[in-house]
Amino acid sequence: MRGSVLSVPIRRFDAGESTEDQDLLAVEEPLQIRIAGRNISITMRTPGNDAELAAGFLFTEGMIRQASDIAGIKCADNEVVVSLNSGIEIDPERLQRNFYMTSSCGVCGKASIEALESAGCTILTRKAPSVSESVIISLPDKLRDAQAVFERTGGLHAAGLFSADGELIALREDVGRHNAVDKLVGRALLDGLIPLSEHVLLVSGRASFELVQKGVMAGIPVLAAVGAPSSLAVKTALRFAMTLIGFLRGNRFNVYTEAARLS
Amino acid sequence: MRGSVLSVPIRRFDAGESTEDQDLLAVEEPLQIRIAGRNISITMRTPGNDAELAAGFLFTEGMIRQASDIAGIKCADNEVVVSLNSGIEIDPERLQRNFYMTSSCGVCGKASIEALESAGCTILTRKAPSVSESVIISLPDKLRDAQAVFERTGGLHAAGLFSADGELIALREDVGRHNAVDKLVGRALLDGLIPLSEHVLLVSGRASFELVQKGVMAGIPVLAAVGAPSSLAVKTALRFAMTLIGFLRGNRFNVYTEAARLS
Repeated sequence: MRGSVLSVPIRRFDAGESTEDQDLLAVEEPLQIRIAGRNISITMRTPGNDAELAAGFLFTEGMIRQASDIAGIKCADNEVVVSLNSGIEIDPERLQRNFYMTSSCGVCGKASIEALESAGCTILTRKAPSVSESVIISLPDKLRDAQAVFERTGGLHAAGLFSADGELIALREDVGRHNAVDKLVGRALLDGLIPLSEHVLLVSGRASFELVQKGVMAGIPVLAAVGAPSSLAVKTALRFAMTLIGFLRGNRFNVYTEAARLS
Repeated sequence: MRGSVLSVPIRRFDAGESTEDQDLLAVEEPLQIRIAGRNISITMRTPGNDAELAAGFLFTEGMIRQASDIAGIKCADNEVVVSLNSGIEIDPERLQRNFYMTSSCGVCGKASIEALESAGCTILTRKAPSVSESVIISLPDKLRDAQAVFERTGGLHAAGLFSADGELIALREDVGRHNAVDKLVGRALLDGLIPLSEHVLLVSGRASFELVQKGVMAGIPVLAAVGAPSSLAVKTALRFAMTLIGFLRGNRFNVYTEAARLS
């Protein structure tokens, strides 16, 4: 990945010994997303897949509804300019709401779940797809095997999109876990694969409201996290009939909602 | 902590066996911060210490300069209303910039470091305080021993403020790591302890630009993280002469900047 790792000099302390050494850092830089001369968002991200990130962000935040809303995406140094097709406009109120939110927050406001409903999120079809317990258990190793940067820096979150039978379709890494998911969803959007109704999303960290929100927007029925889910993540998954899995480690995991999808 | 944990029914899968069980979740709810009828921010946070969070957020984002700017803080259900003393106004441009930023981002924009400079951040005094290697190594255990919620849910980030000789002064936990730091800094601000020029801040996760930014705003000379720092975290620490420590585990750690403060 271009520019995603930086080597810096460090002083390493180990059991009382101190030595000069080099360490690899995950790159974190601001990315500005602009539409029609207007600043839509500035987010800290790891460079690479910026067009996917912008497309995914606009889609999972409900600013665009489909890939055909986008006329073009131009990436320059830490800036992405998205042009929309004629007749497609960003809803100023949604933009306003976006300004009120933070990236650990997603579409929140006083009525987080209602906001998702107003963004056109429909409740996921129950019981489709069916995913086996053995497939779920196999996902973290597949994600780790495919990860390029994380192993080297320890500083990146990963998100993997899998088929219901456990095949890895795409992997993205970023200093922000929401960005890793936006890159994945953006790729799928640009490839015409939305809604991802036969897919499983695995995230390397915890499951917050925001990640569930992005999954629901993309129509993903199963979200699995290596870490813990939050209370609002569980409430949102429950509302939209998403299967939410947490603490996926070794041959163990917890299912918080919609366990019926597990065979 | 009031309302910071929620028990929910789950299905637990373990080596092919599946059982009904209960699990404790970290609570995540939106908090709205308002000043003079204006929405300043909505952030997802774990309820508790909301006044501290609001004070710390306004201070570390450069919207207020000192505790005496605040006339009063009123907390209601998921809303904090801050009133400012006469003559104190929120800079509309800063507010605008805040709308462009995300919570994993802090004061970013095209010129993240310049924004910190314009917010009145001064370069930290070099070499003060001196902190011993043995003190640094002792911090994670002290933080863990004091942590109430994390052990139970696995879902909260922790931030601890320590004296230079390793005494724990305060601990805060939150689903958002930036919130845990804002709560700590807010407490210190309300107690008249800013700048925290003789202190060490420990965070349980990674060190992003945003956490370094908040530390610099509070005048904290040493920031230690259990996880990895990002490239921009290191650049910012270097610019403001903060000692940045990462991968603090067992009797090991890496020093990325200003190692001279370690004795």
